[in-house]
Amino acid sequence: MKAVVLFSGGLDSTVLVQQLIHDQASVRLLSINYGQRHKKELSHSSRIATSMNLPHRILDLPDLAELLSGSSLTDSSVELPEGHYAEESMKSTVVPNRNMILLAMAAGYALSIDFDTVAYAAHAGDHTIYPDCRPVFADAMQNALQLADWKDLRLHRPFVNLTKAELVRIGAKLGAPLHLTWSCYAGEESHCGKCGTCVERKEAFEVAKITDPTEYVY
Amino acid sequence: MKAVVLFSGGLDSTVLVQQLIHDQASVRLLSINYGQRHKKELSHSSRIATSMNLPHRILDLPDLAELLSGSSLTDSSVELPEGHYAEESMKSTVVPNRNMILLAMAAGYALSIDFDTVAYAAHAGDHTIYPDCRPVFADAMQNALQLADWKDLRLHRPFVNLTKAELVRIGAKLGAPLHLTWSCYAGEESHCGKCGTCVERKEAFEVAKITDPTEYVY
Repeated sequence: MKAVVLFSGGLDSTVLVQQLIHDQASVRLLSINYGQRHKKELSHSSRIATSMNLPHRILDLPDLAELLSGSSLTDSSVELPEGHYAEESMKSTVVPNRNMILLAMAAGYALSIDFDTVAYAAHAGDHTIYPDCRPVFADAMQNALQLADWKDLRLHRPFVNLTKAELVRIGAKLGAPLHLTWSCYAGEESHCGKCGTCVERKEAFEVAKITDPTEYVY
Repeated sequence: MKAVVLFSGGLDSTVLVQQLIHDQASVRLLSINYGQRHKKELSHSSRIATSMNLPHRILDLPDLAELLSGSSLTDSSVELPEGHYAEESMKSTVVPNRNMILLAMAAGYALSIDFDTVAYAAHAGDHTIYPDCRPVFADAMQNALQLADWKDLRLHRPFVNLTKAELVRIGAKLGAPLHLTWSCYAGEESHCGKCGTCVERKEAFEVAKITDPTEYVY
């Protein structure tokens, strides 16, 4: 397998990369600056790529956020919600059609370098609020990708039915650099500990019974 | 219908816009600078939008081309082929996964402004070389778009089974500003008259028996 991985520098995609290396795939990492508030994840993605000694591209598309305004992840005039990830309030963190946009670019990149796979780390915990993390969306994208080019291209999403706690367990077992990953949407010096993704991250380590290496403000 | 139109400033998408206005749709135009060689079409898109008095956004993503290198439309080290559009040599003008990328962004924009439709002007003449202009690809994208968000979004592609000559006929009948449209891939002062899309454009006016307002070098 020769896979372009959509790589945010977060926990999920870092575990995915470690899993692919374990599976002896050729891997290239692609991170995309779409104008997200939590740009900090981009510097973490570089650090992780360096630590894993993997080729890494950062695609700079800062104007995309303005087009997709209205999400609290891209629009600083929208307040960032606190609390549990699965709550209704978290819907403001949905960036319209983000995954299709990112997957489409990763697919273009994979086709241009003759890779056969695009991998992304959507997992079961994402489904409640992110429609474009659901298995049914991934299936539809797989179908569209097959038809978008004369070459075959596979959409690899091995975590689509796993919980984040299961990803933590896999990551710990395979030795993924979980301590280098970044989740927090607030994008301050340390993880805030209060935003949806921090709450989810804490919970995942607790449930997995793995020591959480993260420094939280709260 | 409230439609975001993928608008290149070319003949096809200009006829599409005129058709949508004729159908009394609300229309917003989206043009994307993905680092294409024929950037001239972007200035034409502005001129046409102004002449039609329609809201128009140009999304600036110049770094995308570097990621998708290898196409003669984005990579100036690849020679631009001359001759007929349907020939094998024209395959170098395929930008990997371009339509999925552009449609995905147009869909994100439509969702963010509560529009219900994304429209694009793929037509039957594109099928031979562009896999992502085929009806079967459009159907797959429609399916993926339905699943990408909680809101419904329709992919409108009324020209997918029409020839370019038929588009010329429709455009002329509805009074589309065909004289303002730009097709040439070379991107010089006038249409070169030799590249695939110039040859196709000339032929379409001839077959449609409509006077061609275009100034060609050859």
